Amino acid sequence: MQAPGTPSDGQATGEFRITVRVYFEDTDAGGVVYYANYLKFCERARTEWLRSRGIGQQHLAEREGISFVVRSASAEFLRPARLDDELDVRSAIERLGGASVIFRQRVLRAEELLFEARITVACIDGRRMRATPIPVAVRDALLQAG
Amino acid sequence: MQAPGTPSDGQATGEFRITVRVYFEDTDAGGVVYYANYLKFCERARTEWLRSRGIGQQHLAEREGISFVVRSASAEFLRPARLDDELDVRSAIERLGGASVIFRQRVLRAEELLFEARITVACIDGRRMRATPIPVAVRDALLQAG
Amino acid sequence: MQAPGTPSDGQATGEFRITVRVYFEDTDAGGVVYYANYLKFCERARTEWLRSRGIGQQHLAEREGISFVVRSASAEFLRPARLDDELDVRSAIERLGGASVIFRQRVLRAEELLFEARITVACIDGRRMRATPIPVAVRDALLQAG
Amino acid sequence: MQAPGTPSDGQATGEFRITVRVYFEDTDAGGVVYYANYLKFCERARTEWLRSRGIGQQHLAEREGISFVVRSASAEFLRPARLDDELDVRSAIERLGGASVIFRQRVLRAEELLFEARITVACIDGRRMRATPIPVAVRDALLQAG
Repeated sequence: MQAPGTPSDGQATGEFRITVRVYFEDTDAGGVVYYANYLKFCERARTEWLRSRGIGQQHLAEREGISFVVRSASAEFLRPARLDDELDVRSAIERLGGASVIFRQRVLRAEELLFEARITVACIDGRRMRATPIPVAVRDALLQAG
Repeated sequence: MQAPGTPSDGQATGEFRITVRVYFEDTDAGGVVYYANYLKFCERARTEWLRSRGIGQQHLAEREGISFVVRSASAEFLRPARLDDELDVRSAIERLGGASVIFRQRVLRAEELLFEARITVACIDGRRMRATPIPVAVRDALLQAG
Repeated sequence: MQAPGTPSDGQATGEFRITVRVYFEDTDAGGVVYYANYLKFCERARTEWLRSRGIGQQHLAEREGISFVVRSASAEFLRPARLDDELDVRSAIERLGGASVIFRQRVLRAEELLFEARITVACIDGRRMRATPIPVAVRDALLQAG
Repeated sequence: MQAPGTPSDGQATGEFRITVRVYFEDTDAGGVVYYANYLKFCERARTEWLRSRGIGQQHLAEREGISFVVRSASAEFLRPARLDDELDVRSAIERLGGASVIFRQRVLRAEELLFEARITVACIDGRRMRATPIPVAVRDALLQAG
């Protein structure tokens, strides 16, 4: 856990980690994880982060009509992950805005950094498909120390 | 095109063909097409069949609340497809029932048979998630000679 | 664990279970898990079964030139799984032959059966792509009581 | 086709276009194309570009031990694509270096821009997994006017 931020300034509150195993479905004929699949791992991590704070996205969509969508992603593919690898996906909030969040996410194998990305996620009103403020309960959950 | 069937007996009306190219996304670390992905190719073929007869599934779902869902699948993986292969996906109707269709689908590379499956698709009312009769326009479209 | 089988008769030795979470990547515009993805869950389960007995497929391929490939699959899609569902994937060996294994695999959500399949996996010599006897260590591992 | 570049300066030579259809496999429970899948569309486009110039990646890997791997990607997700959409994927070379290429790729639906990305692809020696100069035949093919 890194130095915690505070709700008032919208800074990162620490790092959230999940473990992902590489299966055949994740690899390609190059013998490594197919490049787009790192974005799947990142999304599992963001989803588990919300879930760990009691927030289910299916529930958010059904009850409040709110969804999170990725607006931009910038990624570096540093070294290849391979079949059977156990990956450590680490996520942190770089910036928490009123209607969007910038995540910084990294994928490591043991201490070796394989992939890193900065991903901007926007909160939208699913019916109108427009940006909407992140609900207070979700903000609080994201800012809560690890 | 094979011998056409007639609307009255619900037999196959011929064979519908699409070409599918194998990309990295379709392969796995074994150097071949990942086994579940043949089912993607089969669905593209069923969708294109409907589209070629003027039936869009998004439209069917929105206007008539009707969707097609796979109820069962039985498949043989005979030989592996590989990166860059151009595959010939051939589909035929084995049986057209009141609320379901049995497709017979095969994947070939040139004349070599790689995969074959029998797939049962049911017509459902999306709101109640229950079986419902296939609309007459869809039946007619499926039975129309190629 | 159910009644264990014995190495001599090649019967099932019990049931192996893993938990799979449904993420956005697994779903489709119908709001449910895309049908081909149940086969991904089944493969994760078979892989974890081998791994739980100390057998890594990457290692098998590199050291012994041996791979497991799916020869046939027969599946029933009974009820849809949805986003955020926690699925229980249960696998058992129905028949252990000299060069192939028939798995029976089911996906449940709590006690509700969503999917079941019978999947035949063959052991092949990766260089010649031909059937080869399952190594004794792998047979013993598969037959070992849970 | 835009103004062609010249081999000497390594500038873009125009735009290469493919059409991609959106199938159920590409969508998610949000009713739109799953974000990572735009990267699949981009890779199909790069692969078809090479193929249109007579370059097969399987062949390159087998004969010359050379592969292309993505080193970085920066993407904007502007508007969602949906089931049944016909997408126009347009690719151009932004910079052709000695051992890497920067592609600029966009996905449109009719004239509406849905997605754009800048993707850096490196040429590697597959055995050593290290950067290697892009073969002259490949450079020439990429710079050839559309």
